[in-house]
Amino acid sequence: MVDLTPALAELAAAVGNADLITDPDRMEAYRRDWAKDPSVGMPCAVLRVRSPEQVVATMQWATRTRTAVVPRGAGSGLSGGSSAVDGALTLSLDRMTDIEIDVPTRTARVEPGALNIDVKRAAAEHGLWYPPDPSSQEICSIGGNLATNAGGLCCVKYGVTTDYVLGLDVVLADGRFLRLGGRRLKDVAGLSLLKLFVGSEGTLGVITGATLRLVPAPPPVSTLVATFPTVGSAADAVVAIGAVLRASMMELMDNTAINSVEDMRQMGLDRSAGALLLAQSDAPGAARHDEIETMARLCREHGAGEVFTTDDPEEGEMFTEARRASFLSIEGRGSLLLEDVGVPVPLLPALLNGIEEIAARFEVEIPVVAHAGDGNTHPVIIYDAVDADSVSRANAAFAAVMSLAISLGGTITGEHGVGRLKRFALPEQLGADVMDVSRAIKDALDPLGLLNPGAVL
Amino acid sequence: MVDLTPALAELAAAVGNADLITDPDRMEAYRRDWAKDPSVGMPCAVLRVRSPEQVVATMQWATRTRTAVVPRGAGSGLSGGSSAVDGALTLSLDRMTDIEIDVPTRTARVEPGALNIDVKRAAAEHGLWYPPDPSSQEICSIGGNLATNAGGLCCVKYGVTTDYVLGLDVVLADGRFLRLGGRRLKDVAGLSLLKLFVGSEGTLGVITGATLRLVPAPPPVSTLVATFPTVGSAADAVVAIGAVLRASMMELMDNTAINSVEDMRQMGLDRSAGALLLAQSDAPGAARHDEIETMARLCREHGAGEVFTTDDPEEGEMFTEARRASFLSIEGRGSLLLEDVGVPVPLLPALLNGIEEIAARFEVEIPVVAHAGDGNTHPVIIYDAVDADSVSRANAAFAAVMSLAISLGGTITGEHGVGRLKRFALPEQLGADVMDVSRAIKDALDPLGLLNPGAVL
Repeated sequence: MVDLTPALAELAAAVGNADLITDPDRMEAYRRDWAKDPSVGMPCAVLRVRSPEQVVATMQWATRTRTAVVPRGAGSGLSGGSSAVDGALTLSLDRMTDIEIDVPTRTARVEPGALNIDVKRAAAEHGLWYPPDPSSQEICSIGGNLATNAGGLCCVKYGVTTDYVLGLDVVLADGRFLRLGGRRLKDVAGLSLLKLFVGSEGTLGVITGATLRLVPAPPPVSTLVATFPTVGSAADAVVAIGAVLRASMMELMDNTAINSVEDMRQMGLDRSAGALLLAQSDAPGAARHDEIETMARLCREHGAGEVFTTDDPEEGEMFTEARRASFLSIEGRGSLLLEDVGVPVPLLPALLNGIEEIAARFEVEIPVVAHAGDGNTHPVIIYDAVDADSVSRANAAFAAVMSLAISLGGTITGEHGVGRLKRFALPEQLGADVMDVSRAIKDALDPLGLLNPGAVL
Repeated sequence: MVDLTPALAELAAAVGNADLITDPDRMEAYRRDWAKDPSVGMPCAVLRVRSPEQVVATMQWATRTRTAVVPRGAGSGLSGGSSAVDGALTLSLDRMTDIEIDVPTRTARVEPGALNIDVKRAAAEHGLWYPPDPSSQEICSIGGNLATNAGGLCCVKYGVTTDYVLGLDVVLADGRFLRLGGRRLKDVAGLSLLKLFVGSEGTLGVITGATLRLVPAPPPVSTLVATFPTVGSAADAVVAIGAVLRASMMELMDNTAINSVEDMRQMGLDRSAGALLLAQSDAPGAARHDEIETMARLCREHGAGEVFTTDDPEEGEMFTEARRASFLSIEGRGSLLLEDVGVPVPLLPALLNGIEEIAARFEVEIPVVAHAGDGNTHPVIIYDAVDADSVSRANAAFAAVMSLAISLGGTITGEHGVGRLKRFALPEQLGADVMDVSRAIKDALDPLGLLNPGAVL
């Protein structure tokens, strides 16, 4: 600690037993999230805290010294929401990983650094389940999930993160500690501050704990895999299925994504298919078989080529795992810009056709996987980071995809968050008045603008 | 319109074709909600608008003239949230009742004055379903449901109002018109303003339209009715059931409520039972029979006396209807103070035993019906409004029940809202810092304090 500035020495004294990292080499691991933003800054330090009290002390120090703070969970974000800012403190919650399951109330008390998968495992030990399941569930933290209101594959039936948050502990910019909600399933007393903090991407407060709602363990699943000549016919099947039953998963890959996955794992997918639909039912008892057969019939009625169904959960898991790995299958192929646009479900064909046009126009490859049942898609723009022209075309395509989604009545982000990388597109979606009201709320809670500057707003 | 003050004449000119009521006799119908607060004020006028544009004009006028505005839906609130305020304008949305169902996106576009039941009926015509089902569903408006984040009987499985809101149109205190969200199922772009307005009880803005999520029509239900010697044994059964399956309804009546219902309709309920549990399963196919048998077994294991089950939905509906009517069965017996306290589910016995003690201590009768699966209860304090001593004892009991719920880690209101009648108890639940932050947000959005003054904060 020989090189500490007076301000950092004061921080070290205020928080006591926490890792304060100032060595540039050691800070490197805390500068970027998975979006790998090339323009990230250099923090003044990285602080790895162990307790809510240390977060309170940190924010009191930040207010005293007017130091900006970037909260950070596991660093698996995809929008640059926890990217380091020049001169700011990166506040890492990755050591706060406690998980306590309370069986009678079917709740989990978790610290923000706990991984999503570890919450699921802890709940499963008691026959319970925490549904939200981002594809990154093995490596993403609950704190990050709360900050972005993360979604996932089962959200089409089970909802997103905010639907499972019963309580939140939040430290404000000035160090005030708020306890919101608790172990009660329904609570409408006062303004919904809890729901406001969920999805605020660290701009309104630092989440230091949460009470999560658990549900009984899910029953086994039946699975369907169907190929379609076009994305449009697959989307029609999705709409038809959604009108009669609630699938527990409804994922789509376009032709480019199918080929990426098939390149990585030879699963025998039809490389010529326009789209592949992967759906599941977890209806209890015999109903899951019936539901999957209904889905199969509707797929055939809407032009599906091959339709494969199975009531064997393990066989189904093999396909789900391939879907989750689709990001990895693309990752090695170049630098990536990750989109997260969503539209009303029936407009999926318009969105995907438009993305195909954008890919052609800007000469970039854009494979798409989608949570089709939610209309939420993940186009991935593949480009060459050392080729200035490729970078420029990729950035133009990135913006064009978001504009397209907005023009279709959609959103620039369905579950990843705005972070720093999509901030430029947010006013186009929300409009001036909604932006103004959002800033007024930000100013009311963080008048000095200390929390996660440059993200979202 | 001969008697209009200059300010009201300006309002009449600004809004154009809308009913501006100033006749005291005609205003009477718009002064109270179902809580029948005896201390309601006298509005300067009642304005029944027909369009969002008229709401914009009204709020611009309110800001110009510094006139307070109390938004009002169907007037079926139970906490005095739309009670008239002396000199304020009561803004009635009861004429804005349009409902449009969009089948491909499975959404409803509704105006705030549309009744909950009419949204359900419109959806049902297309084989779709809007789940939130307050007991008042036949007479309550969607606008009121949004303002209070209303719950209901099926919420134990299907969630509350906020879980079904995809889009909101809101007019701010200064007349600015915000369009939030839309026909997309997942959207995390920017702060969750939409979720903040839901449940804000007309204190942050006037809701002029909403996009609601619909789901496929529910399958038929199986029903269980079980009597228990004590509330504690019934609550134990509720906890045991909740650990293994998700019932679509889980209602409880205490001994006093059982007798009230039996007085009104001779259904052959066991008048000596300590508690009656009414539960349903809407699992697909044969699973609903299996689930109801599992529930029956768990009820017996936890001390149930009589256990009756049926797979006949109409027979089940008879019992549900009796439950919904429990408020009516009590209504004729005196003046009422309506509680809406909630606790973590395993603490239901502690809450209900405590309420029994409070009833004895203050010599009032307090029947309780509860959404037991959610830990949300409706104790009703029956008193004599012309007996000052009875009024005073009832008010003391009203406060004591809320303090009890707070002391058990619960809430003063699970679904009715704070309104005016529970406002005094809110700081005890939330604490000074949460109150301060709530006021800061209110000030940011309504700096002149024009919207629903005296409610909530």
